[in-house]
Amino acid sequence: MLVNGKSYKTIWLDGSGKIKTVDQNLIPFKFRIISLKSSDDIANAIKKMTLRGAPIIGVAAAFGVYLSVKEGIKKAYSGRKLDNYVIKKSEKILKTRPTAINLKYAINRSLVAYNSEQEPDKKLEAVLKNAISISKEEELASYKIGQYGLKIIEDLYKRKKYKQINILTHCNAGWLACIDYGTALAPIYFAKEKGIKMHVWVEETRPRNQGAKLTAWELFHNNIPHTIITDNAGGFIIQKGLVDLVIVGSDRTTIKGDVCNKIGTYKTALAAYDNKIPFYVALPVSSLDIKIKDALNEIPIEEREENEVKYITGYYNGIKKILISSPKSKAKNFGFDITPSRLVTALITDRGIIKPDIKQIKKIL
Amino acid sequence: MLVNGKSYKTIWLDGSGKIKTVDQNLIPFKFRIISLKSSDDIANAIKKMTLRGAPIIGVAAAFGVYLSVKEGIKKAYSGRKLDNYVIKKSEKILKTRPTAINLKYAINRSLVAYNSEQEPDKKLEAVLKNAISISKEEELASYKIGQYGLKIIEDLYKRKKYKQINILTHCNAGWLACIDYGTALAPIYFAKEKGIKMHVWVEETRPRNQGAKLTAWELFHNNIPHTIITDNAGGFIIQKGLVDLVIVGSDRTTIKGDVCNKIGTYKTALAAYDNKIPFYVALPVSSLDIKIKDALNEIPIEEREENEVKYITGYYNGIKKILISSPKSKAKNFGFDITPSRLVTALITDRGIIKPDIKQIKKIL
Repeated sequence: MLVNGKSYKTIWLDGSGKIKTVDQNLIPFKFRIISLKSSDDIANAIKKMTLRGAPIIGVAAAFGVYLSVKEGIKKAYSGRKLDNYVIKKSEKILKTRPTAINLKYAINRSLVAYNSEQEPDKKLEAVLKNAISISKEEELASYKIGQYGLKIIEDLYKRKKYKQINILTHCNAGWLACIDYGTALAPIYFAKEKGIKMHVWVEETRPRNQGAKLTAWELFHNNIPHTIITDNAGGFIIQKGLVDLVIVGSDRTTIKGDVCNKIGTYKTALAAYDNKIPFYVALPVSSLDIKIKDALNEIPIEEREENEVKYITGYYNGIKKILISSPKSKAKNFGFDITPSRLVTALITDRGIIKPDIKQIKKIL
Repeated sequence: MLVNGKSYKTIWLDGSGKIKTVDQNLIPFKFRIISLKSSDDIANAIKKMTLRGAPIIGVAAAFGVYLSVKEGIKKAYSGRKLDNYVIKKSEKILKTRPTAINLKYAINRSLVAYNSEQEPDKKLEAVLKNAISISKEEELASYKIGQYGLKIIEDLYKRKKYKQINILTHCNAGWLACIDYGTALAPIYFAKEKGIKMHVWVEETRPRNQGAKLTAWELFHNNIPHTIITDNAGGFIIQKGLVDLVIVGSDRTTIKGDVCNKIGTYKTALAAYDNKIPFYVALPVSSLDIKIKDALNEIPIEEREENEVKYITGYYNGIKKILISSPKSKAKNFGFDITPSRLVTALITDRGIIKPDIKQIKKIL
């Protein structure tokens, strides 16, 4: 998507064999492309949320496995020694974030590719091919999600007699979270191309403010009218009839259609449901976890450091972190919550729009 | 309540005729008592939220009317001239904040007191007496709310076989919002005196973070175990069974029991309801507005400046305001929302605990 009028993707392999990505911790204050040169760089970037969002961290992880094979070969490892090195580095990457299924999925696929060949050089070729495939598949998935989701917006636009559509979103499920287009934002970008009049309410998404910092910045650079609100205000905006539909992303969706997504999604879903406003979840099929039956008790919910709640990073003569709460009080910081399928109108996937139930999910798999 | 081990009230008339109050904009970073010397000082303090909270702003307004009479007399005004001055200053105070009913209530009562006497000096005496009465009544109301609410906590404590009670609250409805004790927090302070084991989840309450800044600070100084969470996390904490009951305050409650309170209350109420967790609203009878039938359309919801969302005040080498969102994006900042009575378990008032319906509300009035 566009940044200052120029088109970018979020992650790519450059000519010199380095992985390039946008440093998301600097957005919206600075736009900087950085290089990730080793599998440890990849792990650190995911851990520190230099790159974040379920689809992109999967792709980054696959590139991380590729870099680990390259490192092992450089150390003249082969056979069991190379295997052990690659597994160790893969596990390091896997442990960075527990909630999104994409890390696990991408690393498993990378190791399958690795094991499909015997010779180190062939293994290297296979994991690179795999990483590029995952990246292309994610990009295609976002494109398809966008095209399916576009129909929902078009239909609503007709029903509203071509009056402005108001969409509410939570967190960032835009192109920054993906390779391009986004998941939740992809239908919005495609609707924009069709000339549909739209306005997006952006919930700021505490504690990291990815809505106010990333989504609003993305929408600004791509000329989509939008307004930032506190997460608290989402309920009131919906109550007052100022929202036509909600679209969010998902970090992991179960076979029953329960959605694990950024903390606060559940409260917003409740508000939409209470006011009979459609609540859509946009997700690539790669983020479905068919093994989970009880989302609330089986999905590991990342608990992050308390200072992410007590302090906030912003801009005041440079990027600073300031205290915004009672200094001697403790805080807890859960990263995700569960939106039960009963609150979800439909899932917008890269294989079509489906009801969030076991039958329809099994059908598209 | 206690600050650094010493007992305080939030607002009082000192020997020299000045109104003293705690500067709430500096909490939790500094504790400073300031003087309000004129009716304009009172209006500015309410406007700038130096003092905030439905009960305290009513009391401050009554003291403001008193100061306006004093100013008029000093200018040697009497008769129609004095009336006009007092009405002008009262209207200025009334216009500072639209949502809480207390301002209107306190100013109306002050003007009735003013009109009950003929002579300027007698008028002055009457409005002062009235302001002190309102202050004492609010303090007593908080005390009674605390005693009624205590029973709810005691009953639950017995039912939980004396295991720790987990209470969630939103915003600040503590002693800082009142004269003493608080509304939502009063039952908690009294339960603490009874030795009941408790823990309070404090929703930070964006955009002004009165939960993280004021409630957490109050609870810290009064030795109540507590944990700050983002507003977003409230839903997850409730989902996970970590909350036994929710208690919040109210800025205005209708005759039907619909509750207008700090933005975000509605989303939290939905989460409590969805998980069958009791949701209580603590309020003095003075904040009931019996004229409002349709809360969502008739209560004026304060819309505050967008920079209160885009920037936040915190501490970094002094108190600073930093940008926390996409610089070129717009924001909207609604201050309150409506929690329909169907989501409210009961109202804890100074005249007893009642169901939020027209019959029971009429009965206590």
